[in-house]
Amino acid sequence: MSDFTPEVQEAIDRVRADVARLHAELVRYNLVVWTGGNISGRVPGADLFVIKPSGVGYDDLTPENQILCDLDGNVIPGTPGSDRSPSSDTAAHAYVYRNMPDVGGVVHTHSTYATAWAARGEAVPCVITGQADEFGGEIPVGPFAIIGDDSIGRGIVATLTGHRSRAVLMQNHGVFTIGKDAKDAVKAAVMAEDSARTVHISRQLGEPIPIPPESIDRLFDRYQNVYGQTPQGALGASGTDEGDRQ
Amino acid sequence: MSDFTPEVQEAIDRVRADVARLHAELVRYNLVVWTGGNISGRVPGADLFVIKPSGVGYDDLTPENQILCDLDGNVIPGTPGSDRSPSSDTAAHAYVYRNMPDVGGVVHTHSTYATAWAARGEAVPCVITGQADEFGGEIPVGPFAIIGDDSIGRGIVATLTGHRSRAVLMQNHGVFTIGKDAKDAVKAAVMAEDSARTVHISRQLGEPIPIPPESIDRLFDRYQNVYGQTPQGALGASGTDEGDRQ
Amino acid sequence: MSDFTPEVQEAIDRVRADVARLHAELVRYNLVVWTGGNISGRVPGADLFVIKPSGVGYDDLTPENQILCDLDGNVIPGTPGSDRSPSSDTAAHAYVYRNMPDVGGVVHTHSTYATAWAARGEAVPCVITGQADEFGGEIPVGPFAIIGDDSIGRGIVATLTGHRSRAVLMQNHGVFTIGKDAKDAVKAAVMAEDSARTVHISRQLGEPIPIPPESIDRLFDRYQNVYGQTPQGALGASGTDEGDRQ
Amino acid sequence: MSDFTPEVQEAIDRVRADVARLHAELVRYNLVVWTGGNISGRVPGADLFVIKPSGVGYDDLTPENQILCDLDGNVIPGTPGSDRSPSSDTAAHAYVYRNMPDVGGVVHTHSTYATAWAARGEAVPCVITGQADEFGGEIPVGPFAIIGDDSIGRGIVATLTGHRSRAVLMQNHGVFTIGKDAKDAVKAAVMAEDSARTVHISRQLGEPIPIPPESIDRLFDRYQNVYGQTPQGALGASGTDEGDRQ
Repeated sequence: MSDFTPEVQEAIDRVRADVARLHAELVRYNLVVWTGGNISGRVPGADLFVIKPSGVGYDDLTPENQILCDLDGNVIPGTPGSDRSPSSDTAAHAYVYRNMPDVGGVVHTHSTYATAWAARGEAVPCVITGQADEFGGEIPVGPFAIIGDDSIGRGIVATLTGHRSRAVLMQNHGVFTIGKDAKDAVKAAVMAEDSARTVHISRQLGEPIPIPPESIDRLFDRYQNVYGQTPQGALGASGTDEGDRQ
Repeated sequence: MSDFTPEVQEAIDRVRADVARLHAELVRYNLVVWTGGNISGRVPGADLFVIKPSGVGYDDLTPENQILCDLDGNVIPGTPGSDRSPSSDTAAHAYVYRNMPDVGGVVHTHSTYATAWAARGEAVPCVITGQADEFGGEIPVGPFAIIGDDSIGRGIVATLTGHRSRAVLMQNHGVFTIGKDAKDAVKAAVMAEDSARTVHISRQLGEPIPIPPESIDRLFDRYQNVYGQTPQGALGASGTDEGDRQ
Repeated sequence: MSDFTPEVQEAIDRVRADVARLHAELVRYNLVVWTGGNISGRVPGADLFVIKPSGVGYDDLTPENQILCDLDGNVIPGTPGSDRSPSSDTAAHAYVYRNMPDVGGVVHTHSTYATAWAARGEAVPCVITGQADEFGGEIPVGPFAIIGDDSIGRGIVATLTGHRSRAVLMQNHGVFTIGKDAKDAVKAAVMAEDSARTVHISRQLGEPIPIPPESIDRLFDRYQNVYGQTPQGALGASGTDEGDRQ
Repeated sequence: MSDFTPEVQEAIDRVRADVARLHAELVRYNLVVWTGGNISGRVPGADLFVIKPSGVGYDDLTPENQILCDLDGNVIPGTPGSDRSPSSDTAAHAYVYRNMPDVGGVVHTHSTYATAWAARGEAVPCVITGQADEFGGEIPVGPFAIIGDDSIGRGIVATLTGHRSRAVLMQNHGVFTIGKDAKDAVKAAVMAEDSARTVHISRQLGEPIPIPPESIDRLFDRYQNVYGQTPQGALGASGTDEGDRQ
C-alpha cells in the first residue's frame, strides 16, 4: 500500500521533514517536557497525515521515523517508521483532519500556563493586542474528555468550528492548536502559551483592562488582511506567519 | 572485592554510563542548581547500586567517577571513583533499595515547585490528566526528616509503599522519585516538577476543577496497560517511557 | 535612489550589521517569541533608518535582509532587502525618528512582565535602585492605540518627551524603548523587562518600600554623570552602557 | 608598582582566571542581565583583589581584562586591564575585604527573587533544609544605602559580621554574598537566589511550615563538619562546595 504517485510521495517527504523539524520549536519555547507533546501535518492532495512516533525523545526525531497514517489514524504499513506506534494522541489528530478539511496541521502540548487555565476550565480573556491579532478574541475551553475514543477529537472540533481561535484549552488536560499547515499550528501553540502566560501574570496583581470588541475585530481583520489572507474563521489568520505578530 | 562475574561487571558498566549521562536531564529541565541533586541506579543481578559522587559539578560527571556501593551504602573499595565520597544522600538511596526490591532507580532534587509544596507540607492534588497518567492521583508528602540517619529513607519507603505515585515530597526538603531503573526515576522527577508547577500556577488564580476518581483510575490504568506493563503500584507505570505521556 | 555618499553608505552598513545582530539579544533575554519584536536604528547623518524585515525568524536575520527606510517609513527601493516588507511596526518607529531627533534606536517587544503591567494600564513604580539608575523613576504607561496609523507613534512620543524613562508601556499592547542608538534601546528593553519582573514578583507578597524621590534623583544623576554623559531627559542615560548598571 | 614576587604574581594570575571564568556561572543560573552583576576575588598573600571591569559584557571577559585593585579600591596602574574602570561597585567590595579578613570572594547581583525580597525589606525565612544547610537560618536584610561612598560596604559588613548567612539582601537594591574565595561566594549567590525563589513560590499559596531552630542548627553544623570545615560564622560553611548541598 506504499506506492504513491510521485507528487504524493514528494508531499509526504516534505511533511515528514517539516513535522520532524518543527518539534524543535516546542522545545525551544518550553512548551514540552520529556516526550509530552506532538505535532502532525496533513499530506496535501492525499487522505494522509504524518505524526510523531510515540515515546521517542525530541532529540531523536528524523523525517524517517515520523509515522504516516490515514485519516482514521491507522498506520500505513510498509512505510518508514511503521514499525513503531504513532503518538497516543493520534485518534484526536485524525478526528480533526476528518472533520475540518481546511486544517493542515495539529499540535498538542501541556504547556504550563495554557494547562493552568485549562485546569480551572477558564478561557483566556482577550486583554492584549497580540492575542486579538492572533486569535481574534478569547482562547476557549473545550470539554473534559478522556483519551481512548473520539471524545477529545470531538471536543476540539466542536469548540473550534466557526471560532476565530486556532487554540482550544481542553479542560484539565492541555492545549490543542490547528493551522493551515504544521508550522502554522506550531505558531498557534507558541502564541497561545504566550498569551496564557502574559494574561495570567497580568491578573495576578489586579484586573486587566478589557479591549473593546470593535477594536479586537479591527486588529484581527487587519492582521489577516494585511498579509493577503482570506479571513474565514480560525484558519484565515494562518498567513500571519509573514507578519511581525502584532 | 572488585572482581565481579563478567555479567555483573557488564551491568555495572551500563549503570555507570546511564547514571552519569542522566544527570544532564536534571540540568536540562532545570531541576537542580550547583550540585544539588543526585541520581542512582541499581545494578541488576547484584546487591549493588551506582550513585553520583559528592560535590562534583554536572559538567564533570563520567561513568568512571560514579561510585559503586553495596545496599548499606558502603563504597566498594578498589572500584573506579572509590577514592571520593558518594552523594551525601547515599544512605537514603540505599534504604530504598534495601526495602523496595522492585525499585531500580532513585532520584533526589530540590526542584523549585515540588519543594515549594513540600515546604507547606501539602500534597499536589490531581487536577491535570498528565498527573493522573503518571502518578495515578496526588503526589504525597513524606515526613520532616533530617539527613544523617535512616529517617529520610524510612520516610520515602513508608510514603511510597503501596502508593501509585513514584514521587514523594519530603516536608521542608525536596522531592525523591523512584522507578524501575534510573531513567524511569528521572522521568518521574521531571513529571513531578511539571505537575507541581502547573497545578501551582493554576491555583494562583482560583480553584482547579477536580478530576473524578474514576476518571483518574481509567487514565492511570490505560497509561500503564497500553504500553504492556503490569499495573502493580508505583512501578507498574514505569513502562510509560514508551508513551507520549498522556 | 540608492547612491549614497561613501560616508552615508558606510553608516548604513554599520547600522544594518548592528540591527541584524542585536535581535539576538532579544532572544537571549527571552523578550520575544516567534517573530514578535523588532529593532531599528537611525543612520547617523542621513534621514534614514534600518529596521527588521516582517515575518523573518530571528535565526535568519542578516545585515543584507534588514530594510532601509526614509523617515516616513517608506522602503528605499533598490537597496538590499527592499523586496520584502519592513516590520509591521515601521510606522511607529518612523514617527519616533521624525519627532525625537536625539533618538538613534527604537525597540518594540511584547516581553511578558512589561506587557502584563501594560494590560492593567499600570506604571511600574520605582522601588529598586536599578530602575532608578536606568529610568530615573517609574516606567510610564502610554495610551491604547491601534496599529495602522500614527497613533502608536504619537502615544510613544507624547509619553516619553521630557520624561526620564526610555521605556513606555503601551496599554494592552507591549513595550517600546528608545536610545541614543539601537544598542542603547535594546539595553533599555532588557532593563525594562527586568524591572517589570522584579517589581511584579516583589508585589506578589506585599508592598515594596518606596525609594525617596531625592534618592531616585541622586541615583539617576550619578548613573549618568559618572560615565561622562550630559543628563538631558531620557537619552542622557544612554552612556550607561559603560557602567555596571547599578 | 606592578612588580610582584613570583608567588604573588602567580596568585594574581590564578585569581584573574577564576574571576573571569566564574562570571559565566552568573549567566548560567540567570542571576544577571546585561552587565548588571560582578565578582571579585582576594589575592591570597597580598593586599589586593581582582574585580570585573565596568560595562564589559559577560561574553567578553578574559583573565587579562579583569582589574587589579588595592584594598582601598584603587586600580594598580600598569597592570593588565588598568586602562579601564573597575566595576562601579568596587568601593563596596573593597570595604568588605578591608573589614572582613576571612573573606576571599565577593559577589553582587540583582537576581530577581532575592531583589524582590530586598524591595520589601523582608528577610527570607528558613523553611527549607537547603537554606538551613547553606545559610544556617534566614537570609538577612541590610540597610538602604546609596552607591557613591562606603555606605553599601558598611551595610554589608554590619549585617554579615557574626551572622551565619553568607548572603545579605540590600534593601531596594540587590544581593551581596561573601565566601572563602570567589567560587564560594558565587555558590552563595546561586543558593541565595534558589532559596529566595523557592520560599517565595511556597508562600504564594499559603504559609510554609517553620523548621525548628534546633533542627536548623543540626543541619548547619552537619553541613559544615561533614566536610571537615571549622564552623566559624558565615565562612565556616565555605567548604560545603565539596558537598551535595543538602
